[in-house]
Amino acid sequence: DVMDIKADDPVAFTFFTGYMAMFAASVFFFFERQQVDGKWKTSLLVSGLITMIAAVHYYYMRDYYAATGMNPTVLRYIDWTLTVPLMCVEFYLLLRPAGAKQSFMWKLIFASVVMLVAGYIGEAFTDGTMFHSVLWGVISTVGYVYILYSAWAGEAAQLAKASGNEAVQKGIKALAWFVLVGWAIYPIGYMAMPGGWLGQDGLGLLQPSSLDLIYNIGDAINKIGFGLVVYGIAMSETKRAK
Amino acid sequence: DVMDIKADDPVAFTFFTGYMAMFAASVFFFFERQQVDGKWKTSLLVSGLITMIAAVHYYYMRDYYAATGMNPTVLRYIDWTLTVPLMCVEFYLLLRPAGAKQSFMWKLIFASVVMLVAGYIGEAFTDGTMFHSVLWGVISTVGYVYILYSAWAGEAAQLAKASGNEAVQKGIKALAWFVLVGWAIYPIGYMAMPGGWLGQDGLGLLQPSSLDLIYNIGDAINKIGFGLVVYGIAMSETKRAK
Ligand SMILES: CC1=C(/C=C/C(C)=C/C=C/C(C)=C/C=O)C(C)(C)CCC1
Ligand SMILES: CC1=C(/C=C/C(C)=C/C=C/C(C)=C/C=O)C(C)(C)CCC1
Repeated sequence: DVMDIKADDPVAFTFFTGYMAMFAASVFFFFERQQVDGKWKTSLLVSGLITMIAAVHYYYMRDYYAATGMNPTVLRYIDWTLTVPLMCVEFYLLLRPAGAKQSFMWKLIFASVVMLVAGYIGEAFTDGTMFHSVLWGVISTVGYVYILYSAWAGEAAQLAKASGNEAVQKGIKALAWFVLVGWAIYPIGYMAMPGGWLGQDGLGLLQPSSLDLIYNIGDAINKIGFGLVVYGIAMSETKRAK
Repeated sequence: DVMDIKADDPVAFTFFTGYMAMFAASVFFFFERQQVDGKWKTSLLVSGLITMIAAVHYYYMRDYYAATGMNPTVLRYIDWTLTVPLMCVEFYLLLRPAGAKQSFMWKLIFASVVMLVAGYIGEAFTDGTMFHSVLWGVISTVGYVYILYSAWAGEAAQLAKASGNEAVQKGIKALAWFVLVGWAIYPIGYMAMPGGWLGQDGLGLLQPSSLDLIYNIGDAINKIGFGLVVYGIAMSETKRAK
């Protein structure tokens, strides 16, 4: 009954490191929150909540994978159901000083729900055909593209530009890069599944077992990396204000 | 013995997301409490206690449901026995600056106890007949309507009006909307049970398994949503005072 990870199982390896990294990142964000100016405290708290929520789900996913060797799809989407909307909240918090309305946040959250519900149907209810995988992947991508557009050219980008506030612009630019590069990791993992374009029935580049490996890498980058970027901006703005 | 959630089981999905959401909300309220003015700190603490209590009960309800597939009715009412009176305390805390007496709080708590005891008899001791379900549902609704009346036209509404304090009025108006719309979700769930008006023996609109789904949605809205509204008012009042 002791934790036993096979030496040649990178998926199990990343589930375990992912769990600990998320846990440690939460402690980091919660403590460092004391050091930043008041207006940044809520952002750092939300960063810490995202990694804290992920730590708990990684704990369960790690065990599920160790016991069954299967993708913990349901747990994965339970995690995203909470953490992706919280990333939309981070957008909103950064842009509130620039005059963002709550409706801006709800539009992003709505797009993220479309993205996740379609992705869930695509993965959890797959019949193994490429038709199913592609259909739901495309619908999911519509939600993704909305967020991407908002960050680079739409409402978020315009609010940041109009604000004339350098810290806000840096923050939104960073988030936009995360959405473009970091979030794009997930559809690659998705395409590893049976029926996926990059999997065995498609180009044959990825094994189904790569799916979780890719998602774990994506989560580390997006959840911890993005929090660290916000933290960096918050710290330098705090020093400058002194 | 590993956490295994069926892909097509929304009840289990919401028990798990509910658990994590309550947990995260508590951490949020406890931390952000540092940022608000003294007079709001107790309200934020009580909001955090409500979600913290719920997180623990969701942890047990989730496991109970995963193991048995049945409604965790007793655990549910154990949760409400603590959290609903605490929501009455929130009413009182908001109205104390407007001169609310402790007797005001005890009247609300008494009404909530009537509501919950009758609801418990209705659910836990059901013989499956509509007579039982409707009888205890109606008695429970008497307690509910008292709280609703107090919030919209009775003591709570009058105290808020007389206070001339905008923040208090906004807070009570928000609570009144939660009691009218958010709390009304619960009787809908109740009517899904055997013998209920909306269930198989009535209009046939809801399955017995919908009961917990509906209660979980109601809890997320009322416990977290209401806490966030109080938090929003507290933050804007704190900023205004500076
Ligand atoms: C576009 C697309 C997807 C996108 C998923 C994304 C973008 C997930 C982001 C998760 C994050 C950012 C978590 C961090 O906390 C899916 C659902 C795989 C399905 C295939 C198409
Ligand atoms: C009217 C009515 C009910 C009302 C329940 C309510 C209103 C519960 C509120 C719970 C809250 C607000 C929890 C939050 O912490 C019951 C008992 C289902 C029985 C049927 C009639």
